[in-house]
Amino acid sequence: MRDSILAAAVQLFAEYGYHAAPLRDIARIAGIQAASIYHHYPNKQALLVEIMATQMQHLNQSLEHILQEHQDSLVRLDAAIANHIRLHTMYKAEFFIVDTEIRALDPENRPYILSLRDTYEQLWQELLRTGMEQGIFRTSDVKVVSYAIIALCTEVATWFKPEGRLTVQQVIVLYRQLITHGLLLPDQSV
Amino acid sequence: MRDSILAAAVQLFAEYGYHAAPLRDIARIAGIQAASIYHHYPNKQALLVEIMATQMQHLNQSLEHILQEHQDSLVRLDAAIANHIRLHTMYKAEFFIVDTEIRALDPENRPYILSLRDTYEQLWQELLRTGMEQGIFRTSDVKVVSYAIIALCTEVATWFKPEGRLTVQQVIVLYRQLITHGLLLPDQSV
Repeated sequence: MRDSILAAAVQLFAEYGYHAAPLRDIARIAGIQAASIYHHYPNKQALLVEIMATQMQHLNQSLEHILQEHQDSLVRLDAAIANHIRLHTMYKAEFFIVDTEIRALDPENRPYILSLRDTYEQLWQELLRTGMEQGIFRTSDVKVVSYAIIALCTEVATWFKPEGRLTVQQVIVLYRQLITHGLLLPDQSV
Repeated sequence: MRDSILAAAVQLFAEYGYHAAPLRDIARIAGIQAASIYHHYPNKQALLVEIMATQMQHLNQSLEHILQEHQDSLVRLDAAIANHIRLHTMYKAEFFIVDTEIRALDPENRPYILSLRDTYEQLWQELLRTGMEQGIFRTSDVKVVSYAIIALCTEVATWFKPEGRLTVQQVIVLYRQLITHGLLLPDQSV
């Protein structure tokens, strides 16, 4: 029942936004009485926090796993790009909520969700810093590059369609190429 | 007076979201009576459309100008990256609304705003296609690369702070480097 409620909340928050999605509509789509929803979640805010925390913990754990499994910076980068794009295309509505509803969090819930996001950025920064120190990646601003790559791979979720022209795997290959080699052909590089 | 109303709407839509920002609060911040707002805008939706259309037209016109002024693909790319980042850091709240409130548009307003976004993507695609045909850019999927670059340069607005560690110009240099050369050092390139 909790899963049905969560799924209904994801659908309505993503379609109308957190503030425009009434709890009674969430109950209706989940197939329960509006009053019964309170047996599972104290309020709408608790649903938002659980949706965000679940996805972000999942993202963090999978990137931690990649960093533990692999030492080669290029292998780590390839795996981290693929992981981010796969999760964001698989849980498209959930991550859309993560990306647009931070401001809808009550002040007491915000630090926890922001700390999960910080953790993810720090894991990416560790990956990038190590690659730069090893002379594999171009030396650059670790923070700015981490934000850039995360933004790039997150946006895939906004336009990717499973029934579209490209598979997730083809998109991953294109993004890896852009991030590792850039746009310019090698003989133009300085 | 229209400018004050627009500025108040930008502030409240960006802070609370379109649906959570009442018209009477917009009037209060603009310093007019709630009823007087209707002399300038028929409804809240008209404010949203004007905020979005103004910024997107500005973005499109500046990129059209760059493509007309320059023929060299690398110069065009550098100018287009700088233009996007400058506008998105200068009109941070406005572009946050553009990026998060498309779903708040009434069905009759959506096609116009989406067509402005399509135009911007098409201008980027023209820039990229020309560079690939000239053998300056690596051949890739023009659409995917356009979405990727736009996403990357848009996200700057979410974390950039004018009083922060980096100037807009420094961020532009870092992003240009990442987009043109990628992460990998040249001697690692295949």
